[in-house]
Amino acid sequence: MLEENRGRLLIACPDRQGIVAAVAQFLYEQSANITASDQYSTDASGGTLFMRIEFHLDGLEAREQSLCNAFSSLAAEFHMAWQYAPARQRKRMAIFVSKELHCLQELLWEWQSGQLNTDIALVISNHDDARNLVESLGLSFHHVPVNAENKAEAEAKQLALLRDAQIDVAVLARYMQILSPSFLAHYPNRIINIHHSFLPAFIGRNPYGRAYNRGVKLIGATAHYVTEDLDEGPIIEQDVTRVDHRYDAHALRIAGRQVERAVLARAVKWHLEDKVIVHENKTIVFA
Amino acid sequence: MLEENRGRLLIACPDRQGIVAAVAQFLYEQSANITASDQYSTDASGGTLFMRIEFHLDGLEAREQSLCNAFSSLAAEFHMAWQYAPARQRKRMAIFVSKELHCLQELLWEWQSGQLNTDIALVISNHDDARNLVESLGLSFHHVPVNAENKAEAEAKQLALLRDAQIDVAVLARYMQILSPSFLAHYPNRIINIHHSFLPAFIGRNPYGRAYNRGVKLIGATAHYVTEDLDEGPIIEQDVTRVDHRYDAHALRIAGRQVERAVLARAVKWHLEDKVIVHENKTIVFA
Amino acid sequence: MLEENRGRLLIACPDRQGIVAAVAQFLYEQSANITASDQYSTDASGGTLFMRIEFHLDGLEAREQSLCNAFSSLAAEFHMAWQYAPARQRKRMAIFVSKELHCLQELLWEWQSGQLNTDIALVISNHDDARNLVESLGLSFHHVPVNAENKAEAEAKQLALLRDAQIDVAVLARYMQILSPSFLAHYPNRIINIHHSFLPAFIGRNPYGRAYNRGVKLIGATAHYVTEDLDEGPIIEQDVTRVDHRYDAHALRIAGRQVERAVLARAVKWHLEDKVIVHENKTIVFA
Amino acid sequence: MLEENRGRLLIACPDRQGIVAAVAQFLYEQSANITASDQYSTDASGGTLFMRIEFHLDGLEAREQSLCNAFSSLAAEFHMAWQYAPARQRKRMAIFVSKELHCLQELLWEWQSGQLNTDIALVISNHDDARNLVESLGLSFHHVPVNAENKAEAEAKQLALLRDAQIDVAVLARYMQILSPSFLAHYPNRIINIHHSFLPAFIGRNPYGRAYNRGVKLIGATAHYVTEDLDEGPIIEQDVTRVDHRYDAHALRIAGRQVERAVLARAVKWHLEDKVIVHENKTIVFA
Repeated sequence: MLEENRGRLLIACPDRQGIVAAVAQFLYEQSANITASDQYSTDASGGTLFMRIEFHLDGLEAREQSLCNAFSSLAAEFHMAWQYAPARQRKRMAIFVSKELHCLQELLWEWQSGQLNTDIALVISNHDDARNLVESLGLSFHHVPVNAENKAEAEAKQLALLRDAQIDVAVLARYMQILSPSFLAHYPNRIINIHHSFLPAFIGRNPYGRAYNRGVKLIGATAHYVTEDLDEGPIIEQDVTRVDHRYDAHALRIAGRQVERAVLARAVKWHLEDKVIVHENKTIVFA
Repeated sequence: MLEENRGRLLIACPDRQGIVAAVAQFLYEQSANITASDQYSTDASGGTLFMRIEFHLDGLEAREQSLCNAFSSLAAEFHMAWQYAPARQRKRMAIFVSKELHCLQELLWEWQSGQLNTDIALVISNHDDARNLVESLGLSFHHVPVNAENKAEAEAKQLALLRDAQIDVAVLARYMQILSPSFLAHYPNRIINIHHSFLPAFIGRNPYGRAYNRGVKLIGATAHYVTEDLDEGPIIEQDVTRVDHRYDAHALRIAGRQVERAVLARAVKWHLEDKVIVHENKTIVFA
Repeated sequence: MLEENRGRLLIACPDRQGIVAAVAQFLYEQSANITASDQYSTDASGGTLFMRIEFHLDGLEAREQSLCNAFSSLAAEFHMAWQYAPARQRKRMAIFVSKELHCLQELLWEWQSGQLNTDIALVISNHDDARNLVESLGLSFHHVPVNAENKAEAEAKQLALLRDAQIDVAVLARYMQILSPSFLAHYPNRIINIHHSFLPAFIGRNPYGRAYNRGVKLIGATAHYVTEDLDEGPIIEQDVTRVDHRYDAHALRIAGRQVERAVLARAVKWHLEDKVIVHENKTIVFA
Repeated sequence: MLEENRGRLLIACPDRQGIVAAVAQFLYEQSANITASDQYSTDASGGTLFMRIEFHLDGLEAREQSLCNAFSSLAAEFHMAWQYAPARQRKRMAIFVSKELHCLQELLWEWQSGQLNTDIALVISNHDDARNLVESLGLSFHHVPVNAENKAEAEAKQLALLRDAQIDVAVLARYMQILSPSFLAHYPNRIINIHHSFLPAFIGRNPYGRAYNRGVKLIGATAHYVTEDLDEGPIIEQDVTRVDHRYDAHALRIAGRQVERAVLARAVKWHLEDKVIVHENKTIVFA
C-alpha cells in the first residue's frame, strides 16, 4: 500500500546553497522516491528555508529508524530543525466543543468519509449537547463542566484525559471557554481554534453582533493555532461569505456556520497531513 | 429614450401598513409604470421602512415638478424622508487621487465604456502623476499640493474647485490625505473612499504591512462613505482575494490593487444609480 | 408567532401599469402588512411581470380562504397566474439518494438545525446504504431497487410512496437513476436534482472524469428542476470551486462534494420558501 | 540586480528515482542557489515528471552557455525535454484585438504598472478602434482588415509582421477572427486566447446569448492555448462571476468583461514567467 510506505520530512534551516541537493541526494541514496516537494525561503540570502518533502520508500517502517539516524548527521551540518512523520501513522485527535455542533459535525463527517486521516480519540465538552452525536459513532465523549470556580480543576481533568488518550492535536470546534496559558503550554502549535470572524477584525466576544453593528458586507472565519494572546495565534486558513443589510446578527450567525465549518475542516486536514509550518506567529501552508 | 423618462424615488419612513399601496397608487395615478422596486424594513412593527422605486413616465422632464409637488403631500402623511432623482441627470463627480493611479484608471475606464453614468467634472491630486492620464481624456486636472503647513489653505482651494464645478459626489481613489471634519461637512454621505483593507481589520495607515505581519490568508478592500471617524464610515462594498505565505508586503499591495479597483467601481456605480441609502452608519444597498 | 401569520403571494402576469398598486391596495384593504416584495419584468412593454410578496396578517389562518377568494377577482382582471402559500404550512419533502450520501446528509443536517422549513416525509433509495443514517433520525426509509428489468415497476412503487406521503417536493440528492417522463409528469417543477457539474458543461454521465480529461481549472455543481430533457431543466443555483493539475478524477469528486451539497441546500431552501418561479425553462429566484 | 541573475529551468521526463537529486546537485556544482522549485508527477511509477526550478547565479549571462551545455548531458541521461529561460530576457509579445478593447486595455495597464514582464512588440487588429489607445503609449499598431475573401492574404501579412517583430508569444485579446491551422502551426502553445465562457460550456459563437438562453447563474471566461480545434486547446485559467435572472445578454456581456480581463491577465502573466507547461492538451501551472 502506498500510504504505508510514504514518509514526510519537514525542514527549517538557514538558507544557503546546496540544501536541496543534499536532501535530494540523501533520499536518493536511501532509495526513496520524492513524490512531492515544496520549499519556501524568507530570503535567499540570510533567510530561513522551509521544505516539505514527501517520499516513497519500500519497506519504510523497517527502515525509518536508520533513515532518521542517518538524516540527523545531514541535519546537523545544515543546522536544520526537522521532523519526520510517516503517513501511515494517524495523528490522535481530541475535539473540544460547546453547544454549537456544526463544526464538530463537519469534522466527524469528513472523518467518516475518509477525508481526515486521524483517530478521534475523544470529544470533550463543557455541555452535554454533543453526547448522542458522538456516542452514536462509537466515539468517547466526556462532559467536563467549566465555570469561574472550577476552571483550574476542569483543565486538570481535561489535561488528564488528553494525556491518557495520548493525543497529538486538539481542535476547538466552537469551544467557548478560554484555555489558560499553562494548559496551552502542553501543546504548542498543536491546538487549532476556529474563530467566527475574519481576524484581526472582531477579536474577542460576539463577532457576529459586532459585524452586524459595523455593517460589513462579508463575514468570515479564521482557523488558527491557539496561543496565550487571545485570537492572535498563527493563522492557518480564512474565508468569507457575502451578506447584506437584510442579515441581522442571527442571520449572520447562520450564514457564518458554513464558512466556519469549511475553514476549520481545511485547516485540520492540512495539519494532519503535515502541511503547516509555524514561523514567527505566521504559518507556511504547503497545501 | 428610456433613460430620459426614468425616475427614481428613494424613501425612508416609519414602517406601517399601507405605505407600498399609497406609493404605488400615487405613481399609477400619475401614469407612471414601476420598473423596479426594492424595500427593506428594519422591523415591521416600529421599524423604519426603506424603499427604492424606479419608474417610467412619458414626458418625465416636463412633468416632474408637478409630480414632486404632489408627492410632497403623500410624503408628509407618512412622515417620509425622500429624494427624487431623474436617471437622465448625470451626477457630477470629482475624483481625488495621490500617486497610485489604479483606482482612478478603473473609474476612467468604466466611465469611458459607459458603465458609470456620470460627468467627471475634475480630478484633484496632491501630486502631479495623474496629469497626463487625466488630460489625455480631455478632463480637467488640478494639482493641489498638501503638507502640514498649508492643509487648511489647500482644503479651501479644493472646496472652491468643488463648488465651482458644482459636484454632487467626490471619490477618493487612493487619496492619501485625511480630510478635515469641516471639509467633510460640505458633502455628508457624498464622499466615497476606498480603504485598502477589509475593514474593520487594519484601520489606519499601512494596512498591507500589517496584513503581512499578521499573516492573513485573504486581503481585502472596503469602499465607504467618509465621516469624521477615520475608516469608520458606512460601508458600501467589500471584497477579498486569496494570498499565501509567499506574498510579502509589496506583493500584497499588488494583489490588493485588483480588489481595490473592483470594489470602488462597484460602490461608485451604485451611488450614481441611487442604490445606496445610509442609515445609522450602515448602508442599505439595493443592488 | 410571526410565521403563523405570514403569507406569500407569487404572481405572474402580462406587465402593464397599475399592477403593483392594485396588489398593494388589495393587501392594505385586507389589513395585511407587506414585509417583503420583489418584482421582475421581462420587458416593461409587452413583457411578463413576476412578483413575490410576503405579508403579515393577524389571524391569517382563519382569514385566508376569504382573502384568496377576493384575490381571485383581482387576478382575473390582470390575467394573473398566481399561487398563495402560508409560511406556517411546511412543504412535505421526499429525498431520493443512491450510494453517495453527502447531499442527503447536508439536507438532514440543515433540517435538524432548523434551516429547512420542511417535513421530510420519506427517503427513497435504490440501495440500502442510507438506511441507518435516515432511521437514526426517526425518518422513514424505503429501499426500492431499480434495474433495467424492473424500472417501470420500481417507479410505480416510488409513485405510490410519494402519493401516500402526500409530498409536495422531491429532491434527488445524488440519485443515480433517470426518472421516466411519465414519472416526472406527476411533479412538474417540483423535482429538484443536483448535477455534479457546472451545466451546460459535462451534461450526462461521469462529469468529473470528463472534467479531468478536459483539464478545467474550476469544477461546479448545478441544482435544477428535472424535465424530460436530461440535465436541461431550469437551473436554480450553481457554484464552483477551484482545482488544479494535481487533482485526478477522484480528487475532483471529493472536492466537488462540498460544492454539490452547498448548492443543493441553497436551492432546496429557496424552493421551500417559495422564492423560485419557473419561466420558459429558466428560473427567477427572489433570494 | 536579482532579475539579471535569475534563470529558470522547465523539465519534463519519465519519472524515476534520483531526478531531483541529480538536478539539484548539478545546480549546486554550478554554484547556483535554488530560489523556487515545483514538481508534479502524473504517476510516480511510469509517469511523467514535470519540474520548474528558479535559481540565482552570480554572473549568469556570461555563464549560461556553458551551464546549458553541461545540463545537456544530464538531460540526455534522464531523457528530459527541457527549456532554459533567463528571467532578464523579456518575451516579445503581439496582441490581437477586434472592437472590444477591455482585454487589451487590461494587458496594457498591467504592462505599464510593471506587472507583465514583456516587450509589447506590436498590436494587430482587423479594425481601427484600438489605434489611438495603442499609439498613445508609443506602441506599434497595425490595422489588417480581414474578410472572407482576403483571409489567406491577411494571415500572410500578419505572419510577416510577427516574424519581423520576432515575437515569442501572441495574445488574442478578444480577437474575433478564427486563425487557420497553418497560421497556428508557426506558434504552437504560444498563442493565448480568451474565450468568453466557462469552457467547455458554450463553445463557439455568442456564448453570452446562449448563457442567457440557458439561464445560468454564473458566467465565466477561459484563457487557453489555441489549437486547431476551436475552443478545445489546453486551458490555462478560468474564473466565473455571479449573475441572476435580471441580466439580459447585454448585461451578461458587461459583467463578463471583468472576468475576461482578469483571467487573461493572469494567464499571460504565468506564461511570461514560464509557469505553464502543456501536457496532453492540459496545462500544469506552477503559479
